[in-house]
Amino acid sequence: MNICDIIMKTKRRTELSENEIRFIVDGFVSGEIPDYQMAAWLMAVCMGSLTEKETGYLTSAMRDSGNVLDMSEVKGVTVDKHSTGGIGDKTSLVIAPICASCGIKVPKMSGRGLGFTGGTIDKLESIPGFVVNVDFEKYTQIINSVGTAIIAQSGNLVPADKKMYALRDVTATVDSIPLICSSIMSKKLATGADCILLDVKTGSGAFMKSCPDAVRLAELMVKTGKSAGKKCRALITDMDEPLGSCIGNALEVIEAVEILKGNKKDRLTELCIALSANMLEIAGAGNIDQCEEMVRRAVSEGKALEKFSEMIEAQGGDIGFINDYSEIFKAEYSYEVRSCTDGYIACINSEEIGYCSLMAGAGRKQKDDKVDNSAGIVLNAGKGDKVKKGDLLMTIYSSTVVELSEIGNRALDAVIISDTVPDIMPVVYKIIK
Amino acid sequence: MNICDIIMKTKRRTELSENEIRFIVDGFVSGEIPDYQMAAWLMAVCMGSLTEKETGYLTSAMRDSGNVLDMSEVKGVTVDKHSTGGIGDKTSLVIAPICASCGIKVPKMSGRGLGFTGGTIDKLESIPGFVVNVDFEKYTQIINSVGTAIIAQSGNLVPADKKMYALRDVTATVDSIPLICSSIMSKKLATGADCILLDVKTGSGAFMKSCPDAVRLAELMVKTGKSAGKKCRALITDMDEPLGSCIGNALEVIEAVEILKGNKKDRLTELCIALSANMLEIAGAGNIDQCEEMVRRAVSEGKALEKFSEMIEAQGGDIGFINDYSEIFKAEYSYEVRSCTDGYIACINSEEIGYCSLMAGAGRKQKDDKVDNSAGIVLNAGKGDKVKKGDLLMTIYSSTVVELSEIGNRALDAVIISDTVPDIMPVVYKIIK
Repeated sequence: MNICDIIMKTKRRTELSENEIRFIVDGFVSGEIPDYQMAAWLMAVCMGSLTEKETGYLTSAMRDSGNVLDMSEVKGVTVDKHSTGGIGDKTSLVIAPICASCGIKVPKMSGRGLGFTGGTIDKLESIPGFVVNVDFEKYTQIINSVGTAIIAQSGNLVPADKKMYALRDVTATVDSIPLICSSIMSKKLATGADCILLDVKTGSGAFMKSCPDAVRLAELMVKTGKSAGKKCRALITDMDEPLGSCIGNALEVIEAVEILKGNKKDRLTELCIALSANMLEIAGAGNIDQCEEMVRRAVSEGKALEKFSEMIEAQGGDIGFINDYSEIFKAEYSYEVRSCTDGYIACINSEEIGYCSLMAGAGRKQKDDKVDNSAGIVLNAGKGDKVKKGDLLMTIYSSTVVELSEIGNRALDAVIISDTVPDIMPVVYKIIK
Repeated sequence: MNICDIIMKTKRRTELSENEIRFIVDGFVSGEIPDYQMAAWLMAVCMGSLTEKETGYLTSAMRDSGNVLDMSEVKGVTVDKHSTGGIGDKTSLVIAPICASCGIKVPKMSGRGLGFTGGTIDKLESIPGFVVNVDFEKYTQIINSVGTAIIAQSGNLVPADKKMYALRDVTATVDSIPLICSSIMSKKLATGADCILLDVKTGSGAFMKSCPDAVRLAELMVKTGKSAGKKCRALITDMDEPLGSCIGNALEVIEAVEILKGNKKDRLTELCIALSANMLEIAGAGNIDQCEEMVRRAVSEGKALEKFSEMIEAQGGDIGFINDYSEIFKAEYSYEVRSCTDGYIACINSEEIGYCSLMAGAGRKQKDDKVDNSAGIVLNAGKGDKVKKGDLLMTIYSSTVVELSEIGNRALDAVIISDTVPDIMPVVYKIIK
């Protein structure tokens, strides 16, 4: 097999065989295929696409480039969830304990963030004592005893994706649906859960700006997951404004606890319920109505919050903050952003809000930066809300940045206020089964 | 300027500015832009194309990556010729002395071959004493005194093309009309002639298999040359069978001499006359009919052959072979290929014939191989000729390969004999002005 012939085939949109795709992936990981040939192939994929079959082969080849976790020690059905990401997305912290409290197993490996806010792992690290680096034996033990564990990705999982992503990032080859699909799904397949629920976000704050693109990605991921033997489903969900009212690390943990306590009734809560119910349904816990009822009861009866506490304790964390948020949220500095006009909030630019929270210290500008757990933004009004001049729109917090007015001005510009009530989209647009 | 943004623009078919294109070329030559980013950009160009304007910018940026020869010391109008190449193409050896004998200056820098047969330089080196490595001062002196010189490319001419071509060769990004155009034209612009005649070949033995592609390439090259201030024209010519009846190094020099002696009346001769006449016309020597008449007279009166002798002597070569071909053609071994059937020659596969001549020693399998000057093939019949079983189709020669029967069998397979007379295409399909 010759890599030039393979690149030429993809360039001419001739379907590659499974062996040809494994030749590319294995050769790239081993270093036999140099970056420049891989870059040419990736660009040919971006501009010419891959078939569903090729995407499946690519995903499996990537999965097999490293360890594939064997979750057979875990008793019962395992369900994983993946979100394509968005500002304020803390759903993993909510849905893992909800589903675990309903009797299914939720093994969850998450990443740190290199972007506007920290990742799920950074958020959990704002809990004193919480350990994210857990070995595989302990990981499965916690899942068996508690029902869920959320740990940092470790070991040699999908090295092909790490190497390919690093190259895609510097060759303008990120925005390809088959490549995004195989990147996500290879990791989900390698972490070994029986069922996979995908939360594919669309809207101004999402990677997939347009709904048709989000649907195409979701359909391809569901097909790829199913052809690899997994139960798989995707929800297309709205990301036209930040998700929930808190952005930041400790702030998002606190918001998750508020939902688990049953104190919130907003769009974020609605999304967490929909995700949890769908996870339960694909795991075979009942039909969607029964599952939704189970989820609501898990929250209202306090079982989900209890499960969250159990998980934190099993991972060495101190649960005191659940009743005293000041144990994890200690921002010294704050800045209030107030409306300059009367009207309805037509739009809150998620990426700008994310950037402001990064500036306040909530995220990493560079890989080795330390995140400020208490930094972030609390939104006091959401899309569609009526506001008057002088009303509080949001508060910016930091324990490291003293002077927040410049960030505040930028955050104010991210909020568009209009005379008319904007259209409000449903939280869940579509379910791809 | 950011290379990722530039790659993304080309991927999205947004036209790049001159500065952006210079940024890519200069960055790649200096090593600031790594191979993998260049490979991604080249693939984006292959799959999305470049506009005429972008192709012009690319060509100029490549030209300026190294030395640009200043031919102002040469008195009179200078004309260069470029052929996209084909098996048996020895036209440079014929047209340079013809045009020089008609009073125009023909500065010619040629390459060695890495392919089926040697390049023009390899062919000339079969002449005893002929020096191809000539410094620039002597080069211009010979052109001024003789009218033409054919020397090996030297110095730092278009390093961008060398580096880009090496990368294109291993990333399946060779077949792109704008990239082929800029590769050829940047070299032609750097070698500094006032007028450029392009011989763009089409047919089974050409790089451009289809005539429409050849026309597109020719049109783009002519536009690019003109926009860089050159007089420029292209001939689309037939390459559906080997060009002339000799393939090899000394054999092709001998065939060139036969044309210059006026002993040949075949398609190759017709092509040489058309190319020469067009070179004279773009140099302003008269209208096309007058120029053709000048060319025919230059041959019939022996002036062109005399010019060839002068050039060889000026470059240190021994002209004795002109009257005694055995001085340069000394093949010890030969093998006759005879027809197995009666009929008309429908097709002679040029690439196969080229491969056979390579196997006999006429070309290089690897960059540092030495070529066998006497190796090659003499065709005794051409496309459309009527042959009988047992008739001599061709003779294979070598001074290094003793056993030629296997090559002979392969060469026989390259000749298709049919019951019907094939269509014969004109030598020159089209002229692009």
